[in-house]
Amino acid sequence: MSEEKKYVYHFGGGKAEGNASMKNLLGGKGANIAEMTNLNIPVPAGFTITTEVCRIFSENNGTYPDGLDALVKTALSETEKIMNKRFGDTTNPLLLSVRSGARVSMPGMMDTVLNLGLNDDTVKGIAEQSGDERFAYDSYRRFVQMYGDVVLGLKSKTEGGGDPFEELLEAKKKKRGVSFDTELSAEDLKELVREFKAIIKDTLDIDFPDNPEDQLWGAIGAVFKSWNNPRANTYRKLHNIPHTWGTAVNVQSMVFGNMGNDCATGVAFTRDPSTGEKRFYGEFLVNAQGEDVVAGIRTPQPINNAQKGDRKLQSLEEVMPEVYEELVSVYKKLENHYCDMQDIEFTIEKGRLWLLQTRNGKRTVRAAIKIAIDMVKEGLIGKETAVLRVDPAQLDQLLHPNIDPLAKKKVIAKGLPASPGAAVGEVVFSADEAEKEASDGKKVILVRVETSPEDIHGMNAAEGVLTARGGMTSHAAVVARGMGKCCVAGCGMIKIDYEKKTFKAGDTVIKAGDVITLDGGMGEVIKGRVPTISPELSGDFAQIMEWADSYRKLNVRANADTPADAGIARNFGAEGIGLCRTEHMFFEENRIKAVREMIVSSTKDERIKALNKILPMQKGDFKEILKEMAGLPVTIRLLDPPLHEFLPHKYTEIKEIAREMGVTAEKLKSKVDGLKEFNPMLGHRGCRLGITYPEIYEMQVTAIMEAACELKRESVQVRPEIMIPLVGEVKELKVLKEMVVKTCDDIIEKCGVKVDYSVGTMIELPRAAITADSIAQEAEFFSFGTNDLTQTVFGLSRDDAGNFLSDYIDKGILEHDPFMVLDREGVGKMVKIAVKKGRGVRPDIKLGICGEHGGEPSSVEFCHIIGLNYVSCSPYRVPIARLAAAHAALNDKDDKQG
Amino acid sequence: MSEEKKYVYHFGGGKAEGNASMKNLLGGKGANIAEMTNLNIPVPAGFTITTEVCRIFSENNGTYPDGLDALVKTALSETEKIMNKRFGDTTNPLLLSVRSGARVSMPGMMDTVLNLGLNDDTVKGIAEQSGDERFAYDSYRRFVQMYGDVVLGLKSKTEGGGDPFEELLEAKKKKRGVSFDTELSAEDLKELVREFKAIIKDTLDIDFPDNPEDQLWGAIGAVFKSWNNPRANTYRKLHNIPHTWGTAVNVQSMVFGNMGNDCATGVAFTRDPSTGEKRFYGEFLVNAQGEDVVAGIRTPQPINNAQKGDRKLQSLEEVMPEVYEELVSVYKKLENHYCDMQDIEFTIEKGRLWLLQTRNGKRTVRAAIKIAIDMVKEGLIGKETAVLRVDPAQLDQLLHPNIDPLAKKKVIAKGLPASPGAAVGEVVFSADEAEKEASDGKKVILVRVETSPEDIHGMNAAEGVLTARGGMTSHAAVVARGMGKCCVAGCGMIKIDYEKKTFKAGDTVIKAGDVITLDGGMGEVIKGRVPTISPELSGDFAQIMEWADSYRKLNVRANADTPADAGIARNFGAEGIGLCRTEHMFFEENRIKAVREMIVSSTKDERIKALNKILPMQKGDFKEILKEMAGLPVTIRLLDPPLHEFLPHKYTEIKEIAREMGVTAEKLKSKVDGLKEFNPMLGHRGCRLGITYPEIYEMQVTAIMEAACELKRESVQVRPEIMIPLVGEVKELKVLKEMVVKTCDDIIEKCGVKVDYSVGTMIELPRAAITADSIAQEAEFFSFGTNDLTQTVFGLSRDDAGNFLSDYIDKGILEHDPFMVLDREGVGKMVKIAVKKGRGVRPDIKLGICGEHGGEPSSVEFCHIIGLNYVSCSPYRVPIARLAAAHAALNDKDDKQG
Repeated sequence: MSEEKKYVYHFGGGKAEGNASMKNLLGGKGANIAEMTNLNIPVPAGFTITTEVCRIFSENNGTYPDGLDALVKTALSETEKIMNKRFGDTTNPLLLSVRSGARVSMPGMMDTVLNLGLNDDTVKGIAEQSGDERFAYDSYRRFVQMYGDVVLGLKSKTEGGGDPFEELLEAKKKKRGVSFDTELSAEDLKELVREFKAIIKDTLDIDFPDNPEDQLWGAIGAVFKSWNNPRANTYRKLHNIPHTWGTAVNVQSMVFGNMGNDCATGVAFTRDPSTGEKRFYGEFLVNAQGEDVVAGIRTPQPINNAQKGDRKLQSLEEVMPEVYEELVSVYKKLENHYCDMQDIEFTIEKGRLWLLQTRNGKRTVRAAIKIAIDMVKEGLIGKETAVLRVDPAQLDQLLHPNIDPLAKKKVIAKGLPASPGAAVGEVVFSADEAEKEASDGKKVILVRVETSPEDIHGMNAAEGVLTARGGMTSHAAVVARGMGKCCVAGCGMIKIDYEKKTFKAGDTVIKAGDVITLDGGMGEVIKGRVPTISPELSGDFAQIMEWADSYRKLNVRANADTPADAGIARNFGAEGIGLCRTEHMFFEENRIKAVREMIVSSTKDERIKALNKILPMQKGDFKEILKEMAGLPVTIRLLDPPLHEFLPHKYTEIKEIAREMGVTAEKLKSKVDGLKEFNPMLGHRGCRLGITYPEIYEMQVTAIMEAACELKRESVQVRPEIMIPLVGEVKELKVLKEMVVKTCDDIIEKCGVKVDYSVGTMIELPRAAITADSIAQEAEFFSFGTNDLTQTVFGLSRDDAGNFLSDYIDKGILEHDPFMVLDREGVGKMVKIAVKKGRGVRPDIKLGICGEHGGEPSSVEFCHIIGLNYVSCSPYRVPIARLAAAHAALNDKDDKQG
Repeated sequence: MSEEKKYVYHFGGGKAEGNASMKNLLGGKGANIAEMTNLNIPVPAGFTITTEVCRIFSENNGTYPDGLDALVKTALSETEKIMNKRFGDTTNPLLLSVRSGARVSMPGMMDTVLNLGLNDDTVKGIAEQSGDERFAYDSYRRFVQMYGDVVLGLKSKTEGGGDPFEELLEAKKKKRGVSFDTELSAEDLKELVREFKAIIKDTLDIDFPDNPEDQLWGAIGAVFKSWNNPRANTYRKLHNIPHTWGTAVNVQSMVFGNMGNDCATGVAFTRDPSTGEKRFYGEFLVNAQGEDVVAGIRTPQPINNAQKGDRKLQSLEEVMPEVYEELVSVYKKLENHYCDMQDIEFTIEKGRLWLLQTRNGKRTVRAAIKIAIDMVKEGLIGKETAVLRVDPAQLDQLLHPNIDPLAKKKVIAKGLPASPGAAVGEVVFSADEAEKEASDGKKVILVRVETSPEDIHGMNAAEGVLTARGGMTSHAAVVARGMGKCCVAGCGMIKIDYEKKTFKAGDTVIKAGDVITLDGGMGEVIKGRVPTISPELSGDFAQIMEWADSYRKLNVRANADTPADAGIARNFGAEGIGLCRTEHMFFEENRIKAVREMIVSSTKDERIKALNKILPMQKGDFKEILKEMAGLPVTIRLLDPPLHEFLPHKYTEIKEIAREMGVTAEKLKSKVDGLKEFNPMLGHRGCRLGITYPEIYEMQVTAIMEAACELKRESVQVRPEIMIPLVGEVKELKVLKEMVVKTCDDIIEKCGVKVDYSVGTMIELPRAAITADSIAQEAEFFSFGTNDLTQTVFGLSRDDAGNFLSDYIDKGILEHDPFMVLDREGVGKMVKIAVKKGRGVRPDIKLGICGEHGGEPSSVEFCHIIGLNYVSCSPYRVPIARLAAAHAALNDKDDKQG
């Protein structure tokens, strides 16, 4: 070791080496445990091995940095001192938990080992100390089972995929004639430990490690390795968490919530994570280990009487009033300290409260907004922080439709309202089916008894999730809330039959493929399709957006092709239209015929004749859109897709359409064949069409400008911006701009009104970016078409990338799908070059982005950083972009101050 | 006019305002006329209107700069003074020619008007002065005809496309019962003038302008406009001449070669333009206008006795010995002055010699080389100039195969050996057919009575050209030589029947589609296909290449996929292989089966099994290639194309191949469908295959390194360079390089030999260029794949661009096809960025180019300028690249000195 490096941080006894600011190094859990320790909150002592070790471990094929063992040894003996126990001691043994803890929480994604330190000798010490032999051997049994699975990987190496431990456990219960684990005797459990070890030896040819130190290093290695397991990778992919962050490992003294009825374990939120209401909210189980609550297998009890309502369950406030009081004082201390809603885990061991974890609690966006605004009112945080507390990506939840309250509906079951919103879809009973059906374009509801991390991909694919078991903090509930997906959990009224692919709710039988509706806000399961409505955005929402708007620098526009979309966009606060695609209009039933006639024309005159039929229709469209956006700029892009997109491709269709058009099928077929392209993305499209068939663009410009002039006559304020797509060379733009300006000015003169318009271009080809200085001599604005720019910069077809892009992300070659999150390294660099060159030539050039990225928070941040004037995104993402722009501006300010 | 600008340059009487260095402004013809004037060579007086006026005229919709008319008036009066005649005078009228003259010669491409200044009054002056009324009216008739066609555009506006002037002429001859124009009387011609003017009035509703000044401005405008006519555009496209150069207009006093038998007109070369031999070489016609010689309608007479040989024609040396002597002294003066072979035009008017033009003569490359070397020996030029005198693009001619001298052949006709080389192809009888058939991949020979500028596109498409009429300086001969295309001209023995699409040579009838062979060096027309052989490169060639090699800085490598190609490349002086594509080998009959087996595999194990069958074959290939290139570097690119390229696509083929493979047609079909891509260019190819199926690349690397090690054991020096294609992100390269290095090092260790190898990448995606600094951390070399880089930078599919790229070039939006000539503005800028970033990180990184551009002279120059280490091109283009690299280095040196 070249230099003594601090890889291990100790905590316990009111003093910790770390603190809450060290999340990157210690992980969220480790940093907060240290912080709590420093706050004099009772935390079992232990130590954290840093995320840096994880990185070294991953990069060096599972080797630790030199000297780590000595550091761990020192920290362990500190822990022994504070807890007054000794690791591996036979009379007074210290048991440990070994848990993962990344920079951000990844619930259930990585591995954990509990009760570590037990062997045939130490178990006796535990039995004696606890006075409960059954408990000791149950802990031992659990430990061997967990270690055998997590560290030694027995289950994954078992043929057929069954769980041999569970099989032995079931066999034992059967043999004893009992139904529950708790009914097994200490002797039974002792036998089970032996049987467990034997099957490990049989299957894996490994002796179960009896030496506690070997156990410890085995567990540490397993947790570091679990950072790279497939479900953790999937989770990170879904949540845009870089693979390079790594996890820390927290080694902590065990405390037991399952040592008898004076013990308990629970989780709680300092405010309601679903609504944001200011009330202490949690669940606990008497005589249980922590995992039992989260796993959702036993239905937990409410933490206090307020929450209990008229349920028969007993609350913690009733069962252990003093401990509850202590817990209340701890949660208040924590919330006041962190100035944020906390999600805490606690264990009560023989009447003594231990805090195992605190972290900022996950919440619905509705809750996030309410909590942020309340905390401003309470003086806990400022407005800037409040804005930053709401995750722009989560806003989607609010903007999704809900069940129409006036609709008739047949509620067939009720469960917990685990994640708000409404979802309609066909029932499927497995994650794989959900993914498959969704990829075929179907909307599905995933119905499971309970969900596990293996189901993540299916939950992601589904519209909503329904589970029969588990509470508000069960896997299904937590994950669905994170995804902004509607979820009804713990719906014990339904009986699921995976084999028959049906579920029963009372007398109603629902088969796979039947449509149901979920109301995640009410916890209702409804038969059939129920109408949904756009959400009434709350006053809180308006408040937070108002604050956000006051900070952001970027303008936010929408991509909208129809007056209806334009209306929605304006309602969501769009400050203009950044992309109005004109081809959409070409596809409409009553005009596609004229479009095809135009394409099949052999001469320019024929083409103009057909175009003249389209002109009044396009003009009508533009009139409506410009009117809807009165006073705001509307960027209209001239025809972009290759002409073959408008023609039929199957011979039967060709025959039919040829008959309709009154041409021979052969003529139409030969036109279709002639227009076929090897790489349509790189083909005869965009302004290339305008160069070959100037009459098409001329018609479109005429439609735009006549619409504008007519509205202007009616005193409607119009601000059309005419955009030429796919320019790669300034002369393309020059030629077409000349035509546009001449056409517009002629119409304006004829109409005798004054209409301000501008002419600009998409920057969506690398050549456009790299010659942006030339192009800016002609263009009055640039709109970065980052969809196509991503395709050309990467040389990657969006339509084909699906086959291998996931490989790239799984293997860590790319951090994100570049079509979702703007690639700053490559595409972003091209955009920056174009911005610099464009502004260099024309300082007042208007710069915006209209690719899908315009509504993705990290991409919006990039647009802010490089100084664009606006982003443009789909109407429903406008609020997301507004908030993301505010975040970008606020974070930028922080950086500048910092 | 804001400032007095010099738009008009006068010449005549031994004094000129311009000189030879002013070609850009005055055009080649104008600059040389001025130079000749200053050399005291007899040149008819006149003036040149500059190319700048052409540019202004083009850009301002046909408007001249202010004040031009005054400048022309002044120059005209100067001319009148020197020639002692007056423009428009009825007794002593000055007649003018108005000709185009661009920076480089574009023979026959633009318009010319002769005899300008004639009207019903001035014609009488000419008749009186010449003492030949018939001559005067014939000139008048020719003038009206030419003006009506060129300036007024009668022909193009005539329905049915006939030539009404020719029809009237034919009718007149028929009426008079004569066969030749020369048999018509002065009265007949006078009538024709009237009839010509009448038909102009009838068809165009224009009065023929009688005012000489109106005539002059009409002609000037027509010449400027002709710069943009379609055939001039085509010519410029073929010869890479920028549209922006424009043409000058030369207005010059007429002198007449057709005023009687003491008059003549001719063209001559100061050395033989075909072989380079040092002999005065030319053709003339007695009593003719200059156009008659070039047009190839009358077969011209040889200029001197040496050239005459045993032909019956009389030479100029015989007919006018004194004028011949004067001409000899003029040509020597010119050659010594210009230090280059001159192509001159002269007219003899009543025994007096006038020089109309001199310019550097076009020549075959064989002649260019010989002349350059001879002139070095004669002390006229230095070696550097000699190297610069040989056009790299022209070298192609030398490198094309010639007829095997030992082959049996049936010569069916003999003509003039107008342009050397051999050509084999199917006979076609029109330029359009030639183009069509060639675009279908056929090799064709264009057979025409004579060619005209309208035939250029067909000549370009054909392998060779055969004409029945015209001399060595006819249109067909000149253009074919310029194109480096084999041509047999003036083959009077063949009788062409366009209607039946046949030609007869003696008893032999050749139909369209029959194969013939041309020997352009011998002037032979041969029935059927004759074997051809690679040319014996002359000692002169070796000499000039040796000089070239001593100047160039760039290394030159070849793109070669087979040992045979590698051998040819080495023979042509390649200094390594810059691109060895491995997919070529996959397609070979005996291995495609294993490749398909590999693709259809469902598991990695199956895939590896199939790959193991391919391994020994690939190894054999690499062994042969590495051996062929012993001592030189060989860059081998791992598999690049998408896998679907190796599978059948038609269902009948799929069925057959599935049977062969022993799988069901459905399985194969579903694989084929699964691999289908929307944009294969942007699809699952290049290193993306290596990421998904590492075993494919592993097999290839194993084959390379085992081949290298086995050769090394046999003491063959091997220098393999392993190249990863389509990298866009450094991590792709990192992952694959790790595999390559591990595989190679394992094999090297196992074999116990030392093999130096390197690992690098193609830079063919914009993202690779823009992140070249990161990529250079892994790559030991960059090879710029400018084919794909051009596609992605432009967003332009090479396979689809054909539909509209010609539009772009016709409309002047692009100067060149960017797939032929590297686009410096866009693609070049990306390459420069990558060079800078790459060298910044790894100063000794090896940089090369392996796209088609590597053998294109202007692109080679660019590679020199930006400091690449090498270019790599197809084997036959290696000498071109070597010479182009020398030009680049020499021109660079000039720049630095200048």
